[in-house]
Amino acid sequence: MAAYRIGVVAPASRMSAEVAQKVPALAAQLYPDRTPEIVFHPQCFASHGHFAGADDARAEAFLAVANDESFDAVWFARGGYGSCRVVEAVIGRLTPVARRKAYVGYSDAGMLLAALYRAGFASVAHGPVAQDILRGGGDAAVGRALAWMIDRAPQALEPTARGARKTAAFNITVLSHLLGTPLQPDLAGHVLMLEEVGEAMYRIDRALFHITSNPDIRRVAGIMLGRCSAITPNDPDFGMNEEEVARHWCARSGIAWLGRADIGHDADNKVVPFGAGA
Amino acid sequence: MAAYRIGVVAPASRMSAEVAQKVPALAAQLYPDRTPEIVFHPQCFASHGHFAGADDARAEAFLAVANDESFDAVWFARGGYGSCRVVEAVIGRLTPVARRKAYVGYSDAGMLLAALYRAGFASVAHGPVAQDILRGGGDAAVGRALAWMIDRAPQALEPTARGARKTAAFNITVLSHLLGTPLQPDLAGHVLMLEEVGEAMYRIDRALFHITSNPDIRRVAGIMLGRCSAITPNDPDFGMNEEEVARHWCARSGIAWLGRADIGHDADNKVVPFGAGA
Repeated sequence: MAAYRIGVVAPASRMSAEVAQKVPALAAQLYPDRTPEIVFHPQCFASHGHFAGADDARAEAFLAVANDESFDAVWFARGGYGSCRVVEAVIGRLTPVARRKAYVGYSDAGMLLAALYRAGFASVAHGPVAQDILRGGGDAAVGRALAWMIDRAPQALEPTARGARKTAAFNITVLSHLLGTPLQPDLAGHVLMLEEVGEAMYRIDRALFHITSNPDIRRVAGIMLGRCSAITPNDPDFGMNEEEVARHWCARSGIAWLGRADIGHDADNKVVPFGAGA
Repeated sequence: MAAYRIGVVAPASRMSAEVAQKVPALAAQLYPDRTPEIVFHPQCFASHGHFAGADDARAEAFLAVANDESFDAVWFARGGYGSCRVVEAVIGRLTPVARRKAYVGYSDAGMLLAALYRAGFASVAHGPVAQDILRGGGDAAVGRALAWMIDRAPQALEPTARGARKTAAFNITVLSHLLGTPLQPDLAGHVLMLEEVGEAMYRIDRALFHITSNPDIRRVAGIMLGRCSAITPNDPDFGMNEEEVARHWCARSGIAWLGRADIGHDADNKVVPFGAGA
């Protein structure tokens, strides 16, 4: 049996070079008898202002991997910022070959995950990126992404995503920034998991106002809140924490509050497939 | 003739106490023979976490002034954050009396301006708030808001708003956060002016992706960019300035780029009525 082949692309920010050493080494250790082949597209290391290469270069790299029959999965190198700049060019040029692959990433990658899921792709998941290997405990995060890509391993999944319910997961700010655009997927009946990093509480509150005020989002089965980490200072103190804020907007919007989700910008981030993925 | 009466409310952050001294003094100086009466609702000075009072208190204050026949105008004390938390409660309870008034504010107040304009209110304007008197040169800003409220003075207007074209103006982040919600007004055929303060360039870029990707926004007559001030550091350097970013998204979306607008978070901020206001 041919090795499982994963193509890594960076539609947003540039990946650190050491990731391309550490991730294959970990994969060889985790899968000694069937080591997956992990191919880092050269675009991952490119640089153009804020981005891992110019918009065209990032779009072409994504398409080259997604439309290549020899790859089983497209893995996002990292988040950062920039996927929204390539999503239109990418979605319009994906072939049927691209539909058979798994796609895994989170944070800024949510722009592309949303568009892929909206386009009917079956194996789209919110989960660790390659760059997560640089976090403390990052081997576990990367191992989880590999386990889902290679084996659809249930233990890699966020617990709620192990059941029969439809699920979806997003960074709060990213989801806010795709509402009302052609990227917005139909999340009716889905358990929607949300996480955040590096935002002040008033921004989390404002983005949750936005998300829960959208008529289509109001058709979700409910909202679960992942971890909100590295919250920046709020002046004056906001007076509520992230769970109180999320509960507030669920109550105001009539969306069911379903508790906490095991996702976030950290090494414990679990995999959440879009749809009835499990 | 009775004095022009302006009611000041703070649906977002708390107003500084000295504003209530300085603004009436300036008004007396500018209009010695017909000094407007400027009434600061006590709620302007209230405090509740991030906000000028709890959500209910802010909504009640806004309604008390808007629905009071004795007031000719509702003036926003300042921006900050919080209007989205009261807008639903406010819009549902405004009476016909409220429709005859002028409403002036900007920044976070854009949430309420959008909802009022969408509800068909005729005299809604993006313009200086009371708190702007604390800026260097702030007397000119406040004088402009007064001149528009009291006399609809053309010299208070942003130059493009002096003509026959429909106009509207928003803070970029605020407009982004109301897209796809019941607050989003129909801006078809409007010259849309956008300004920003205190955001990193990648955030401005992301919000302009969002705004220009919305199918209804694409029906505007064109976009003009106001000032983007106090831009926070971008790591790495973004590689484009705010005008290049705005031109990029106009070109990508097919929205006409109409140049720069004379609005911003500063003392030079001109008044932009919503609709064919001039």
